[in-house]
Amino acid sequence: MKTNVICSGGLDSVSLAHVLADRGALSRLVSFDYGQRHRKELDFAAACAQRLGVPHHVIDMRAIGAALSGSALTDDVAVPDGHYAEETMKITVVPNRNAIMLTIAYGIAAANGDDAVATAVHGGDHFIYPDCRPLFTEAFDRMQRAALDGYADVALYTPFVHRTKAEIVTEGARVGTPFAETWSCYKGGERHCGRCGTCVERREAFDLAGIIDPTVYEDPGFWRQALASHRGA
Amino acid sequence: MKTNVICSGGLDSVSLAHVLADRGALSRLVSFDYGQRHRKELDFAAACAQRLGVPHHVIDMRAIGAALSGSALTDDVAVPDGHYAEETMKITVVPNRNAIMLTIAYGIAAANGDDAVATAVHGGDHFIYPDCRPLFTEAFDRMQRAALDGYADVALYTPFVHRTKAEIVTEGARVGTPFAETWSCYKGGERHCGRCGTCVERREAFDLAGIIDPTVYEDPGFWRQALASHRGA
Repeated sequence: MKTNVICSGGLDSVSLAHVLADRGALSRLVSFDYGQRHRKELDFAAACAQRLGVPHHVIDMRAIGAALSGSALTDDVAVPDGHYAEETMKITVVPNRNAIMLTIAYGIAAANGDDAVATAVHGGDHFIYPDCRPLFTEAFDRMQRAALDGYADVALYTPFVHRTKAEIVTEGARVGTPFAETWSCYKGGERHCGRCGTCVERREAFDLAGIIDPTVYEDPGFWRQALASHRGA
Repeated sequence: MKTNVICSGGLDSVSLAHVLADRGALSRLVSFDYGQRHRKELDFAAACAQRLGVPHHVIDMRAIGAALSGSALTDDVAVPDGHYAEETMKITVVPNRNAIMLTIAYGIAAANGDDAVATAVHGGDHFIYPDCRPLFTEAFDRMQRAALDGYADVALYTPFVHRTKAEIVTEGARVGTPFAETWSCYKGGERHCGRCGTCVERREAFDLAGIIDPTVYEDPGFWRQALASHRGA
């Protein structure tokens, strides 16, 4: 089993790469440079590939990112603070990003004889991102089987799609994922800000998993306050 | 109805753009520069957008093309002569190209409020290209409805999927498509070679449609010989 992992350098996809490497099933990492505000994520993805001894394909999507404007990940809209699931976080969506990244990863898989493409979409993403839901991943798998029929046999592997981020932390810890070598923050600082949606979600996941979070945050206490406000809303 | 047309600058997609413009339903053209051997196709796509008065988005896919090596369209493998449908033509397939182009066109559609993405895949492509078959286009449409649920409502429009290239010539002629301003040849010459798979298929389509082919070919007689040999095979 040769599995190509879409790796952003974040906690979820780096954990997924380690899970597959632990089984001897990792063939390569594929990352996308779509004009992120900072390249820290990509550096952590490169470090992961090197650590696990597999090739790292970095696909330059900046031209496509520019064509798909309107997202806080790639343009000048301010990144909102607060819990990841808040309505205001919707502006972080790049239209059709997961489908685009997956089709390209499938092309790389077909060209290199991989058996599967793995993506770390997880349960916590479902209700704001339609392209992280099982309905999407299942439809995507069927579409690709039709697209590559007779040329390649590549499965979509989404082991976290019904799991929470806390469960990813647990699974990642089991296979020795160095969580400090992963990046979640949407802002481009030297350290994780501790205030943006993904920082709050990351800190909460470690708390729920009962595993010590090795991340150094600029504002280490904000997450409790954000969650309290989210739950009271 | 605002429809975004994936336009290579070839006969099929330029005809499709003219069909949609004729109905007042054309919003934009989207082309892909994936490291073709020549840029003539892209120049004809740009001329089409200008003629029809719509924006032209050219997506630079060269980095992705390099990652998806192994195709005669993008690397140093020689382009085979003969009928498009021959077994040897399989090497012109870029892994997963249609799915990749379609997901990007959908992202552009979602970002710009288009109602549909149109692609000129047609019946003649079916048996060698799985990603041109109705099974694929229907699965793709379902996948995208899941991916964009709640964000955008974009349909896949494939009016030629059950039609032959000859029928596209007939339909294109009806709306005044300037066929001389389209490019099919896989080789990068000054004029259409008349010998490669797409040249032979193009010339045959005009013949079957009973419409005069305005194309100037380097080798104008080869197509009859190639077809005779194909039918005798």
